[in-house]
Amino acid sequence: MRSAQGIRPLHSEPSSLLQEFLAVRAQTEALCEPLEIEDYVPQSMPDASPTKWHLAHTTWFFERFVLQAEQSGYRCFHSGYDYLFNSYYQSVGPQASRPGRGLLTRPSVAEVFRYRRHVDEQLAELLQQSPPTPALARLVQLGIHHEQQHQELLLTDLKHLLFTNPLRPAYRTRPATIGSPPFAAAPKPPQRPLTFTPFVSGVYEIGIDGTGGFCFDNETPRHRLYGSAFALADRLVSNAEYHEFILDAGYGRATLWLSDGWPLAQQWQRPLYWSEGLDAEFTLDGMQELDPHAPVCHLSYYEADAFARWAGARLPTEGEWERASCSAPILGNFLDSSRLHPRAASASSPASPFGDVWQWTASAYLPYPGFRAWSGALGEYNGKFMANQFVLRGGSCATPRSHIRASYRNFFYPQARWQFSGVRLAKEL
Amino acid sequence: MRSAQGIRPLHSEPSSLLQEFLAVRAQTEALCEPLEIEDYVPQSMPDASPTKWHLAHTTWFFERFVLQAEQSGYRCFHSGYDYLFNSYYQSVGPQASRPGRGLLTRPSVAEVFRYRRHVDEQLAELLQQSPPTPALARLVQLGIHHEQQHQELLLTDLKHLLFTNPLRPAYRTRPATIGSPPFAAAPKPPQRPLTFTPFVSGVYEIGIDGTGGFCFDNETPRHRLYGSAFALADRLVSNAEYHEFILDAGYGRATLWLSDGWPLAQQWQRPLYWSEGLDAEFTLDGMQELDPHAPVCHLSYYEADAFARWAGARLPTEGEWERASCSAPILGNFLDSSRLHPRAASASSPASPFGDVWQWTASAYLPYPGFRAWSGALGEYNGKFMANQFVLRGGSCATPRSHIRASYRNFFYPQARWQFSGVRLAKEL
Amino acid sequence: MRSAQGIRPLHSEPSSLLQEFLAVRAQTEALCEPLEIEDYVPQSMPDASPTKWHLAHTTWFFERFVLQAEQSGYRCFHSGYDYLFNSYYQSVGPQASRPGRGLLTRPSVAEVFRYRRHVDEQLAELLQQSPPTPALARLVQLGIHHEQQHQELLLTDLKHLLFTNPLRPAYRTRPATIGSPPFAAAPKPPQRPLTFTPFVSGVYEIGIDGTGGFCFDNETPRHRLYGSAFALADRLVSNAEYHEFILDAGYGRATLWLSDGWPLAQQWQRPLYWSEGLDAEFTLDGMQELDPHAPVCHLSYYEADAFARWAGARLPTEGEWERASCSAPILGNFLDSSRLHPRAASASSPASPFGDVWQWTASAYLPYPGFRAWSGALGEYNGKFMANQFVLRGGSCATPRSHIRASYRNFFYPQARWQFSGVRLAKEL
Amino acid sequence: MRSAQGIRPLHSEPSSLLQEFLAVRAQTEALCEPLEIEDYVPQSMPDASPTKWHLAHTTWFFERFVLQAEQSGYRCFHSGYDYLFNSYYQSVGPQASRPGRGLLTRPSVAEVFRYRRHVDEQLAELLQQSPPTPALARLVQLGIHHEQQHQELLLTDLKHLLFTNPLRPAYRTRPATIGSPPFAAAPKPPQRPLTFTPFVSGVYEIGIDGTGGFCFDNETPRHRLYGSAFALADRLVSNAEYHEFILDAGYGRATLWLSDGWPLAQQWQRPLYWSEGLDAEFTLDGMQELDPHAPVCHLSYYEADAFARWAGARLPTEGEWERASCSAPILGNFLDSSRLHPRAASASSPASPFGDVWQWTASAYLPYPGFRAWSGALGEYNGKFMANQFVLRGGSCATPRSHIRASYRNFFYPQARWQFSGVRLAKEL
Repeated sequence: MRSAQGIRPLHSEPSSLLQEFLAVRAQTEALCEPLEIEDYVPQSMPDASPTKWHLAHTTWFFERFVLQAEQSGYRCFHSGYDYLFNSYYQSVGPQASRPGRGLLTRPSVAEVFRYRRHVDEQLAELLQQSPPTPALARLVQLGIHHEQQHQELLLTDLKHLLFTNPLRPAYRTRPATIGSPPFAAAPKPPQRPLTFTPFVSGVYEIGIDGTGGFCFDNETPRHRLYGSAFALADRLVSNAEYHEFILDAGYGRATLWLSDGWPLAQQWQRPLYWSEGLDAEFTLDGMQELDPHAPVCHLSYYEADAFARWAGARLPTEGEWERASCSAPILGNFLDSSRLHPRAASASSPASPFGDVWQWTASAYLPYPGFRAWSGALGEYNGKFMANQFVLRGGSCATPRSHIRASYRNFFYPQARWQFSGVRLAKEL
Repeated sequence: MRSAQGIRPLHSEPSSLLQEFLAVRAQTEALCEPLEIEDYVPQSMPDASPTKWHLAHTTWFFERFVLQAEQSGYRCFHSGYDYLFNSYYQSVGPQASRPGRGLLTRPSVAEVFRYRRHVDEQLAELLQQSPPTPALARLVQLGIHHEQQHQELLLTDLKHLLFTNPLRPAYRTRPATIGSPPFAAAPKPPQRPLTFTPFVSGVYEIGIDGTGGFCFDNETPRHRLYGSAFALADRLVSNAEYHEFILDAGYGRATLWLSDGWPLAQQWQRPLYWSEGLDAEFTLDGMQELDPHAPVCHLSYYEADAFARWAGARLPTEGEWERASCSAPILGNFLDSSRLHPRAASASSPASPFGDVWQWTASAYLPYPGFRAWSGALGEYNGKFMANQFVLRGGSCATPRSHIRASYRNFFYPQARWQFSGVRLAKEL
Repeated sequence: MRSAQGIRPLHSEPSSLLQEFLAVRAQTEALCEPLEIEDYVPQSMPDASPTKWHLAHTTWFFERFVLQAEQSGYRCFHSGYDYLFNSYYQSVGPQASRPGRGLLTRPSVAEVFRYRRHVDEQLAELLQQSPPTPALARLVQLGIHHEQQHQELLLTDLKHLLFTNPLRPAYRTRPATIGSPPFAAAPKPPQRPLTFTPFVSGVYEIGIDGTGGFCFDNETPRHRLYGSAFALADRLVSNAEYHEFILDAGYGRATLWLSDGWPLAQQWQRPLYWSEGLDAEFTLDGMQELDPHAPVCHLSYYEADAFARWAGARLPTEGEWERASCSAPILGNFLDSSRLHPRAASASSPASPFGDVWQWTASAYLPYPGFRAWSGALGEYNGKFMANQFVLRGGSCATPRSHIRASYRNFFYPQARWQFSGVRLAKEL
Repeated sequence: MRSAQGIRPLHSEPSSLLQEFLAVRAQTEALCEPLEIEDYVPQSMPDASPTKWHLAHTTWFFERFVLQAEQSGYRCFHSGYDYLFNSYYQSVGPQASRPGRGLLTRPSVAEVFRYRRHVDEQLAELLQQSPPTPALARLVQLGIHHEQQHQELLLTDLKHLLFTNPLRPAYRTRPATIGSPPFAAAPKPPQRPLTFTPFVSGVYEIGIDGTGGFCFDNETPRHRLYGSAFALADRLVSNAEYHEFILDAGYGRATLWLSDGWPLAQQWQRPLYWSEGLDAEFTLDGMQELDPHAPVCHLSYYEADAFARWAGARLPTEGEWERASCSAPILGNFLDSSRLHPRAASASSPASPFGDVWQWTASAYLPYPGFRAWSGALGEYNGKFMANQFVLRGGSCATPRSHIRASYRNFFYPQARWQFSGVRLAKEL
């Protein structure tokens, strides 16, 4: 019942799968290096989770869905962890209170790292015994991609937590070796104007393309759409452009806003991490001067949509986005750069559709025609969230590069602002 | 600014427009005939409005958007009504608290009827002066359709209010002349089994078809879609079928439910108005025995979706629904029958796609490609609600027959249950 | 079990008891004369009740505690009323939701008046059959005093309801015969300065004095207190004096406020019904110019206490209040004057300790030493509220004169403001 | 303005004051020895604070009220700490959000200990410079007593935090050296029956007695009361006795409860830390078998009051309690025993009125006649909480012995259960 037969087959060599597994596990822990023990513990809002919980939950995912399913006689590290570290898999059993995750002082951070070691060793042993079966390989791949998702959440949740502290502590001390001031110190050359690339109307396809890589069930099946002609902006909306919207009373004009967003707009008045003076923003490197040319980020869907309306444009649908991006190489500003903040678009060359910030689309997160969730408990991974959320595309500066692809569908509630989320404009033709 | 230039042209003769106006206004008041004064006043939840408020708001709509725009020198009936009876038009000005509508004991019911008389007379005068301009005719038509929407809401809000009373009072005393017991008294013949009508894949069009009748802006523009092959049930899901879902622990199995709906399912356990014994339901005629063959109603989207999953089917998209229904005549059980409750499908002939209950679709309520909201304040009518809601199609037993059409898009939040809302199943092919 | 054996004996003649009963019942209905049907229905907050509910609940009290206990074979008027109109007597059975009282459109107002007629007739018959037993006389007296309490609540709840209406409708049209403008039109003579009457320290007694009149259980037993020397103001604090407190930033200085009141102070900024301009107040006669010499009213305990601190004084304890007032005649501005608003103190003669506004005391509402609640369900009348509330003394312009006495203890939560509540200052000596 | 001139004079020798200061500071830190860093951080409810916050706040108290007032040229350790670690002194300035205390991962625990060292050194220097002035000695004494209060809160807040963890971790590993099993292992001898000590009626005095020791402003002035005759139980109510109340449906009988407590009773069903099976309780040593003879603890006022009513008794007033206890030596089970849990009363000798659990009294927390709060910001220490709370007397197993005295007034809201709070019964005579 807990197999994941619907996950697409993978032809990884065992050694490379193990290496990939170990590399991802190490990457998660590397993200924790700048932290004090104290930083692992609290939870700044119910939507966010403590770092410690992310470390344990991703481990539990391997233990529960790989080791328990595939290693005969496996004994759990701790009998209470199914309850503590199950996120939302009702098929697996009940879960500890989500808003109470930040109250769990035990297991300690050290104990959670021991848990990681234990599961890593067991999994390494399993993968080294003999060539992994396709089913095992699929489950490990899923666990790897799951852990990559939590790498991004770990950072965005931490950023939110640190921001709640009136001292505004930084996640890390910026290494001096990076050299030149990263933010807006030198006089800026004028920004490259926004241009729109046109696309003709017609039938096209979206969804995973069947070339054999990993994908989530929500990217399937590939299917046809009919699309009208449209044009898509060749870069993201910048801080300077969003600043104009604010100065033009963007947050104060009801007719720009969706009804559900309007009361929130009146509370917000600016992007989540901008200073009241609109000249600085909170980053993982602490408060920093706002770079006018960098992509605006930490916007809700409501803000993205209101900005687009103000700009005389609209958000692209996820079909339009994928159609425009499906043949582009996966280049851009990802977690791999360690920058952890969006970067100003080049003044000369066109921007990649990927990286920097997740792009809100005009598409509600719904099943594709013919969608079937994975079987068993893993069917709860994506399918049960298909209401009330909007799709975001393209990955961000906190997404591992190897995690993203053109068909990748991220989704958040329209009021969510703590992700690295921004805007790319589209237009009718 | 308050013109509605985007509303489609109408070529009504003046006299017929006036007659239509007067007929709709009279129809609203006829719905109030069974009421005591007390019934006009309270509001059982923020989503609902008092009968008195519906009577006044629909009148204000004509006053504000027709008389003030089109009749030179028109003087408002009362200077406070813009504030009290504006529902949500931010462009017009601020509005009294929505959850406070039920606290307005004044103006009295009698005064609200005087307000109606005043506006009716002014509007009749305006329409009789000379042939109405197209702009005037369009605005009056809009006001008529607006009032028809509130006829349905008036009934569903009243039903909810009466249900909150532990005495479970009926809206009306059923006239004895109806004759035979309306509900389930005689032994029932077996219900016609559900059959599915197949549709092939391909490009098709939805949206208002341009034959000249009234439509809302959200039905435009007509546009192409690509659809996969599917099949649509030939009748609505019945009470008996939904009862089986309950008996099969439908409300207790997390894997049937969307994540957002699961906590609600555990509170609900049955359709909004069903008795705990699952054998009776609250109707506008009071508590009545449940007719097993009548369409189940007062379901949320979450319930409709969970039922479909349990049944091995799914909800149709709004495109599928419209494609399947666009050539059917507008027949069925509407407000016009005065039945005010869904009726069992005929055992012999196929059901109309229209009437009885609004059908939840799998489509989020979003703008059509190329959608442009009406200009001015009336642009707030539909467009600003395009997030977090799902589309319902087909009209109900509380919808005036002349109000519905194949392209008509109704929309409610997925947790809403107080409308006459039910399920028609679809399937992949 | 439902007898009320602890209620003090009464030696009323039957005829006078019946007359008293009928007079109080008629008085309640006279208060409703200015109302429209609509005004009887809604509930503006959970603490308040609809007029219709007051009319029915007071009737139910006689039916439940007198007729059912004392009239053999009595049949209830309606089997559902025990559930609908029981306020809080857990011993009697479950009660309909308190915040849902304003949603009960049925029974209609007319039906509630029929209920009153029915119970009045039955009670009159019972009282006329033979001389009432002491037990019966006690219960009828209790019902009479209970109904008097609801006369005051009916008015204060109505005032609050009408105030929530942006049109600020008046409860009644002031009779022209009153003549001269009732509020503050003529130039005001200077107000008589506040003087303080001293009291020496020593042992004294409070509590009902045993001269045989009716009292509630919470006024018993009479008991001794030791009191320090103090002085009590000879009149209530006026609007002009409270206005000075506001102008002196009284609502903005944390050190004047109890910790629990401070967040409320920042929301309130002025007495409940004062206009933003501080020059008018909402009354049962609609918005009226503020009379600077009239007692300030509709204050919470927190406001009364903060004002006293600002004034270098304090609130009196209930013992001090009763000691100072126990020999004064019951004179003053009561419901009987039909003024329904506090009246400026005479410039020449000392004020009565009674009437105009309830006076917040510094005493928590707690049992007197040796207190025993009445037996049976009526023991729930007062005793179970002895936590978290403060005692008010003296009666108000909405209290029937025959209802008040020196030992009378009223009690409300410290944040309550919708009663006619004000301040009399005290001082240490 | 920040002096505390109202604090009673102290004639401590400088050296002993310094020693006392250092001993109390060390005691606080000793309580933290069993903790992991993680345990210092979260906050399980708004009423509780993190251990780290307690450590910092008590330090800030010395810095703000002693060093800044008394040491010329003192420079604050960190400019942000006035905002972060001010609890509720509005006169000092704004405070960080109380419910956000658990989100402050920085300053780290190590940094907070550095802060403690810094302030300790500065204060030691100040006290060693010359004989402290009376004003300085008074402020240091206040800081010491303040820190003792937080020692108790630190433990009760930690206990609550650890209890929210489904793993129910213990605060400490019990040292094996304690020897025999502390909880209920051996067959219990029958408990000594409860006996009541009588007191005659008359005038008596309560309040600090002027023998020169430290006291809080709320214990002043000493004043006279008149009291009726009463009797006071000679020991606390035991677990076994409270268990009987539960078995007798104590939590299910409305007539036993105050109205405000009744809805809570239905949620609670048992003392805060009791197991569902009523045979174990959570302690700072983890889940332990319930000792039937130990005093029941972690009761709210509502439970204490309901139990007393069920037992045919009542709670003592604070005057009665103090009168009965004022000449008893301060003996009993305090923090000093390191037991950190109430202990069964001796079967042979009478119990001390002090220690084990705080005893709810029937007295609302109000100012004594003639009470004057300390001047300046320290006037906010006690006086502004004098509404809505009840007085507790006697100290608990988490109170330092040197902190308590007969006139000591503790106060909590009636619904609070996370303190070591229990019941001593009283009776009328």
